[in-house]
Amino acid sequence: MINEHMMDLGSRRSTIRELFEYGNSRAAIVGRENVFDFSIGNPNVPAPEAVRQAIYAEAAGDPVALHGYTSAQGAADVRGALADSLNKRFGTDYTGDSLYLTAGAAAALSCAFKAIVCEGDEIVVFAPYFPEYKMFIESGAGAKCVIVPPSIADFQIDFGALEQRLNEHTKAVVVNSPNNPSGAVYSEQTIKRLADMLRGKEKEYGHPIYLISDEPYREIVYDGVQVPFVPHFYDDTIICYSYSKSLSLPGERIGYVLVPPAAADSKELYAAVCGAGRALGYVCAPSMFQRVAARCADQTSDIAVYQTNRDLLFNGLTSMGYHCVKPDGAFYLFPQTLEADDRAFSERAKKYDLLVVPGADFGAPGHMRISYCVKTETIERALPLFERLAKEYR
Amino acid sequence: MINEHMMDLGSRRSTIRELFEYGNSRAAIVGRENVFDFSIGNPNVPAPEAVRQAIYAEAAGDPVALHGYTSAQGAADVRGALADSLNKRFGTDYTGDSLYLTAGAAAALSCAFKAIVCEGDEIVVFAPYFPEYKMFIESGAGAKCVIVPPSIADFQIDFGALEQRLNEHTKAVVVNSPNNPSGAVYSEQTIKRLADMLRGKEKEYGHPIYLISDEPYREIVYDGVQVPFVPHFYDDTIICYSYSKSLSLPGERIGYVLVPPAAADSKELYAAVCGAGRALGYVCAPSMFQRVAARCADQTSDIAVYQTNRDLLFNGLTSMGYHCVKPDGAFYLFPQTLEADDRAFSERAKKYDLLVVPGADFGAPGHMRISYCVKTETIERALPLFERLAKEYR
Repeated sequence: MINEHMMDLGSRRSTIRELFEYGNSRAAIVGRENVFDFSIGNPNVPAPEAVRQAIYAEAAGDPVALHGYTSAQGAADVRGALADSLNKRFGTDYTGDSLYLTAGAAAALSCAFKAIVCEGDEIVVFAPYFPEYKMFIESGAGAKCVIVPPSIADFQIDFGALEQRLNEHTKAVVVNSPNNPSGAVYSEQTIKRLADMLRGKEKEYGHPIYLISDEPYREIVYDGVQVPFVPHFYDDTIICYSYSKSLSLPGERIGYVLVPPAAADSKELYAAVCGAGRALGYVCAPSMFQRVAARCADQTSDIAVYQTNRDLLFNGLTSMGYHCVKPDGAFYLFPQTLEADDRAFSERAKKYDLLVVPGADFGAPGHMRISYCVKTETIERALPLFERLAKEYR
Repeated sequence: MINEHMMDLGSRRSTIRELFEYGNSRAAIVGRENVFDFSIGNPNVPAPEAVRQAIYAEAAGDPVALHGYTSAQGAADVRGALADSLNKRFGTDYTGDSLYLTAGAAAALSCAFKAIVCEGDEIVVFAPYFPEYKMFIESGAGAKCVIVPPSIADFQIDFGALEQRLNEHTKAVVVNSPNNPSGAVYSEQTIKRLADMLRGKEKEYGHPIYLISDEPYREIVYDGVQVPFVPHFYDDTIICYSYSKSLSLPGERIGYVLVPPAAADSKELYAAVCGAGRALGYVCAPSMFQRVAARCADQTSDIAVYQTNRDLLFNGLTSMGYHCVKPDGAFYLFPQTLEADDRAFSERAKKYDLLVVPGADFGAPGHMRISYCVKTETIERALPLFERLAKEYR
């Protein structure tokens, strides 16, 4: 009598969740400091002090205005401030009318998918991919999720495989760069080639194909790598953004959908995003954190720690013989597992209290995701354990 | 190429929104103080000072813990504290495991509907009703929304009309007491009779019929009226709650779904609510306001202002000849309009810069909703205008 699919979604723990709970039970036995939990993407770098100051400043003001409903799209002045911040960085001329504030990137994606999906539509996703995509697309919006296999050598795009999966039912293609779980940043060449292919297919099929760019890790890049700003390369882009990672605010649920004016049917599309938000029960994005985001839009948490962690972990693991594409962004390493069965490898790693997520969960078996948004000391102490694990396979 | 239904939901302004925008344009001409906007249910009583203190206290702590992801159901200690608060008030013995924290009541309802709805299901709603119900039920969860006409004399339940609308497809019945827009509080007698009827129908059809109790106005009642606690009368109850009204925090989006252990298949139902939250893109309820709600769960804003406003407005209007069921709760008056066509009446009221919402929007034509969560002075100055409006009909 209950919706069984929802029950299944709610009762079947994800592998990441299973590992998290396992870690807690192990911590009770061996001590928290002896469990090396690399499973969760919860930033361990604190929000910048500016966030705390913004909270104090806002809370000191009129509570009726601060905590009241904003318009469904978000407070007009906040949207204006966020548009200005984007314009400064990317040379665009957006106004607040292109922004729809959301309860984080998950809400942004859910609204974007629901806004565009019609009966029979397909949405294309590149492996390795954030596992919740499939759920938002299928269980949330009712479209078919089509998965392009990973380009193992560099985690850019396998264009041959992509082209085989595009057809007249393709409504959108999702990119996530910097990528969770691979840490890859799509090069300008990759984005250009993708844009060219999609423009060709738009003409061939006679309808827009939206490029949904999920960018919560946009600011988390290393060695001066530039993340191409997708709307500069392809008009029919929809950006989904979250302050979860850049400002270390994942629990506060604050982000946005950006519908650039150049996108096909942009006004209707923006209206449909608003309509999807209504239908899904999103009344407005949390009001105080709308204002905090506006005050802190040009800041980030101290991402230098992530660079330290990446270098330490990447250099350490590759010197032990682990094979890994060097990630340019996000806070994940996605090395190959030392046996083809990544679930078996993840199980074996538990012997050393190393918790890593099997790549199969992201559509890329034979790999493991290591979240390095942890204390640097945790990595230092974990490396000898990764070495002992590697020895078992020599 | 865009989902037209979503586009329509996002571009068609509600009457309330139209009135709000009209009020803004009039304010620019005649001055804000001369526009009497009774259209919006945005609390004008500030959040209690305890909320500000809770924000300061939480913001002073560790930002990684404060702003990090909580579990999808909400932080365990917060859920425990909220369960304790309910137990104290209602003599129940809930634990945090029965609570699923949400981004407000709209999210709570959306998750509850999506958790239970299967193909072909119907959900019953009593007029006058909050207009977004229909959208959550139809556009969000994909069920048929069945409306029971209002019981004009007292805004309790027309049981004859209800019984005609129950059938084997009925999955749930929604009650909202204290009611938006009528202000009516269902009596214990009403709830008992409803529970008896639903139990009978459950037996007849051989499956549970959930009673979804939407209770954002639970604490806003007058003259010592008691709001019956629905789970005491009917096992298969699901409560949807929000702190929007009791703590004047509508923009912060914080509330919960309560699945009492006595409800049919309560474990599976709770899991399905969690699954629905995932599918709709709700990762967790905003983390800082989870903690603020836990600290302030036993408080309310100063609702004495609402009682003053109700008395002033009710006594004033009825003495002029407006007919109105005296509301026992919420912050709405729902009088009959002085002509049968409530939209025409609402238009005529604009001549006096009185903004009232036509009852037809709530499924009860021939009425108007007057939100009295405004300054008392606004009501004092509006009464002579209501008198002049009434004179036109004498």
